Amino acid sequence: MEPRAKGVLESSLYVDDLRAAAKFYGQFLGLEEVLREEGRHLFYRCGAGMLLLFLPDASCHPSHVRQQLIPPHGAHGPGHLAFRVDHDEIASWRQRLAEAQIPIESEVRWPNGARSLYFRDPAGNSIELATPDLWGIVD
Amino acid sequence: MEPRAKGVLESSLYVDDLRAAAKFYGQFLGLEEVLREEGRHLFYRCGAGMLLLFLPDASCHPSHVRQQLIPPHGAHGPGHLAFRVDHDEIASWRQRLAEAQIPIESEVRWPNGARSLYFRDPAGNSIELATPDLWGIVD
Repeated sequence: MEPRAKGVLESSLYVDDLRAAAKFYGQFLGLEEVLREEGRHLFYRCGAGMLLLFLPDASCHPSHVRQQLIPPHGAHGPGHLAFRVDHDEIASWRQRLAEAQIPIESEVRWPNGARSLYFRDPAGNSIELATPDLWGIVD
Repeated sequence: MEPRAKGVLESSLYVDDLRAAAKFYGQFLGLEEVLREEGRHLFYRCGAGMLLLFLPDASCHPSHVRQQLIPPHGAHGPGHLAFRVDHDEIASWRQRLAEAQIPIESEVRWPNGARSLYFRDPAGNSIELATPDLWGIVD
């Protein structure tokens, strides 16, 4: 049988300020910080995967672990990532966003009943909180 | 209790050619295509989440569903994403990459025993196949 990619283990976003990113992803979104390299990256655990935040002008240079190459990458411009939330949490997220003075850019009720809240991280990435039924995913 | 983001539901990468992307992510990696809008995006299911591929020069314009805004985004330059694979699949992935004439840019044995294969998608994004023990994640 042919092997098949089973899930996303690492998702990446690019940011311009690790301190502002830590406040947003760590304190506000409540992700668990796993690894930080000042001036280069900040990694979070999120469910069964990782969210990697990079400063693109640093990650565009190759790095190495035990003389093995970690290939370079680095994008500019706003990316997009969605976190999964439950339907009954939407109201409390809306309230938390207001308390943190993070403007909701859009709130969407999808034709299939799923719901999304959109806002921006401090770097301008488009962040979404979405219920997983948007994609027919149930727990 | 404060709400907390429970996992990544949508990860995004930016590409320059949806047809080449479909060959790579659909045929080669074996992801299930869920939605395609010619000239704009191509969405895949992958495990309990979605991988969204966008043409950034299209996704940078706002779109709407039932008059509700879907905020714009779009990055340029190579991004990074890792798929989870099992240890006993690494050898067959190496062989499949060779058969598809996709060069392995790097192969890494991590200090904790985890393994990674790195290569590029047709748009130049850094794609990794990694065993989840890299991040202490077990099934």
